Amino acid sequence: MNLKFQQLVKLFQRLPGVGPRQAARFVIALLDQPEENLVELGTAINRLKKEISFCGECFNISDNSHCHICHDTKRDKAKLMVVEKVTDLESVEKTGLYKGLYHVLGGAINPLDKITPANLKIKELEKRLEKISAEQGVELIIATNPNTSGETTAMYLRDLFASTNWQNRGLSVTRLGRGLSSGSNLEYADEITLKHALEYRK
Amino acid sequence: MNLKFQQLVKLFQRLPGVGPRQAARFVIALLDQPEENLVELGTAINRLKKEISFCGECFNISDNSHCHICHDTKRDKAKLMVVEKVTDLESVEKTGLYKGLYHVLGGAINPLDKITPANLKIKELEKRLEKISAEQGVELIIATNPNTSGETTAMYLRDLFASTNWQNRGLSVTRLGRGLSSGSNLEYADEITLKHALEYRK
Amino acid sequence: MNLKFQQLVKLFQRLPGVGPRQAARFVIALLDQPEENLVELGTAINRLKKEISFCGECFNISDNSHCHICHDTKRDKAKLMVVEKVTDLESVEKTGLYKGLYHVLGGAINPLDKITPANLKIKELEKRLEKISAEQGVELIIATNPNTSGETTAMYLRDLFASTNWQNRGLSVTRLGRGLSSGSNLEYADEITLKHALEYRK
Amino acid sequence: MNLKFQQLVKLFQRLPGVGPRQAARFVIALLDQPEENLVELGTAINRLKKEISFCGECFNISDNSHCHICHDTKRDKAKLMVVEKVTDLESVEKTGLYKGLYHVLGGAINPLDKITPANLKIKELEKRLEKISAEQGVELIIATNPNTSGETTAMYLRDLFASTNWQNRGLSVTRLGRGLSSGSNLEYADEITLKHALEYRK
Repeated sequence: MNLKFQQLVKLFQRLPGVGPRQAARFVIALLDQPEENLVELGTAINRLKKEISFCGECFNISDNSHCHICHDTKRDKAKLMVVEKVTDLESVEKTGLYKGLYHVLGGAINPLDKITPANLKIKELEKRLEKISAEQGVELIIATNPNTSGETTAMYLRDLFASTNWQNRGLSVTRLGRGLSSGSNLEYADEITLKHALEYRK
Repeated sequence: MNLKFQQLVKLFQRLPGVGPRQAARFVIALLDQPEENLVELGTAINRLKKEISFCGECFNISDNSHCHICHDTKRDKAKLMVVEKVTDLESVEKTGLYKGLYHVLGGAINPLDKITPANLKIKELEKRLEKISAEQGVELIIATNPNTSGETTAMYLRDLFASTNWQNRGLSVTRLGRGLSSGSNLEYADEITLKHALEYRK
Repeated sequence: MNLKFQQLVKLFQRLPGVGPRQAARFVIALLDQPEENLVELGTAINRLKKEISFCGECFNISDNSHCHICHDTKRDKAKLMVVEKVTDLESVEKTGLYKGLYHVLGGAINPLDKITPANLKIKELEKRLEKISAEQGVELIIATNPNTSGETTAMYLRDLFASTNWQNRGLSVTRLGRGLSSGSNLEYADEITLKHALEYRK
Repeated sequence: MNLKFQQLVKLFQRLPGVGPRQAARFVIALLDQPEENLVELGTAINRLKKEISFCGECFNISDNSHCHICHDTKRDKAKLMVVEKVTDLESVEKTGLYKGLYHVLGGAINPLDKITPANLKIKELEKRLEKISAEQGVELIIATNPNTSGETTAMYLRDLFASTNWQNRGLSVTRLGRGLSSGSNLEYADEITLKHALEYRK
């Protein structure tokens, strides 16, 4: 057997969503690329953590200590959207529809995977809100995913910030609208989606 | 060729969503059923319009002049959900989540298919609302589909009932919640769904 | 509830592959059609078995005692393709690639559904082959489906006609080619398909 | 913007089938891995071409000058399967059904992508066959894909090795079976698949 080939295939399987077959295709494709491409990619991976880090404020990916969104003075500081992952933030940014700030939790509460609130950037969110909500009203927009762990996280955050203490500081908590997605069909909607569509009507 | 077979296949293609192949399978399957089944189905289709008609109030399907929902005194008369088709009504009923009344438009505004407001039960909706909203506040819940013709119809109805005249009679107009459907994913949501999720947040 | 509506929905659910939702859509769509269409369809279903029957030779659907294929003197009588259902025959005919005769079994051997060789037109196939293979060589092309019951039926037929008695009468038995279907990919082929692709290579 | 992040995302997009979104997920996931994992992967990519190369005989991937299949004395040298890519070879090997040798072409003839016979390992195949077919009969099994470029390549190879010269040396050329794949359905088979199923019947 090709031991070194198998070893490299295993290394590529550490990438998210990459199985043995796709990993093998990656290695075979790299063999067809010029030597300089390989060195460029290999070196960039070697130096990854020296070059890229997380924003100290919102935990977005960043070249510097603060990300380009937290740096941007034109963003609306009265809105703070809580997302699970950097890729969620990127998807919302791509639409250009949202002009506020973000807070990346780094995941969602999931007891089966042993992810508790302590594993997420929730303490950091509290500290951030203590700082900024004194001056002005802040809307915390919960944008966790509409699945079990995302809903659990949303409920946890709603409870955490429900106290009159927080309300007096001007914090309001909302959740992204739920219901029929664009292009879907009332006739074929599932029960939970219909339930949410009724709840979120306005 | 089998002329009579082809004729019958053509008749079955008049059913919605049935192409030549499925129609042929229907005819072949019917040939395998006992004679009495065929007579039962054939006679029922012959007598269809004598047996079943539309509710004079909400245009749901009905055995009588009024449907079982309009007849039901326990339904919440302060809520009126406007749907496009009877099958939409059936889907909402199946969830058991909604206890108000309905109004079936019989379609949605679609200039390409020459369906204008005059072809829908909108005049009848106005007359109905004139009757019932005098006594008590009524919420008109627009539940047309989240596609072009459904949105057009929703905007038309919002405009139609936006006047202070209607508001003074206690009519309020809402639309089913929009945004992320259950089990979907923020990262992969399309732009229009994210736009609605932001609009309908609460 | 709308009893007569529900009754008619149940009747339509007897059609193959039609669930309660599609059946309801059929009934609602019929309510929108002119009275004469309903009478036309209803009457045709009533008279179905008087108008259409099965070919006495190959069990294809037919207006007469023999179908148009068995009637056609230009078809190649030295080839007999055994298919499970009339719809399989129609699919092969649509390609125009096959010029021989057919034999419709009326299903495939499936002990779970209590379909044994006795329930299929296999006795009739034997009688047919006794008649025709005396004069000339005949190729029996087994075209049952590549699933469990189709394979079982194919093996049963191969065994049945394997005797030297049949071979002396000029009967040869073949099976449709197996392997990679058009547009598929060697890399993603499943093991059984690869096994057959090796067996049927030529 | 995060320039270094975007640069690394672009590098990962060079991998086959990886778009900007998946590439971003790869980079974000790598940021979560321990430093030593990154160095391990980066170094392995840097040294890829020094560690892994292609078999000088069959052009499979190999740690040495000859791959483990060409080395294996128990493989049947009278069978030579011609595949397009190493991943095709791996798929066939995974089934364990084939015990012969391989020849990896490195692609398929495709004028649009400027891949001509000269770009494939066809000359090398001829040389190989000159060596081995003198002693014993050899079956060349063409296992290119059932799409346009795979079929073109198969026809090219059939023509190339059709001469009596090659036949006299004991070379026979076959092609993997074509027709209905496992679990497919005669009724829904496309015309080309049915055409092949008839051709490859046996």
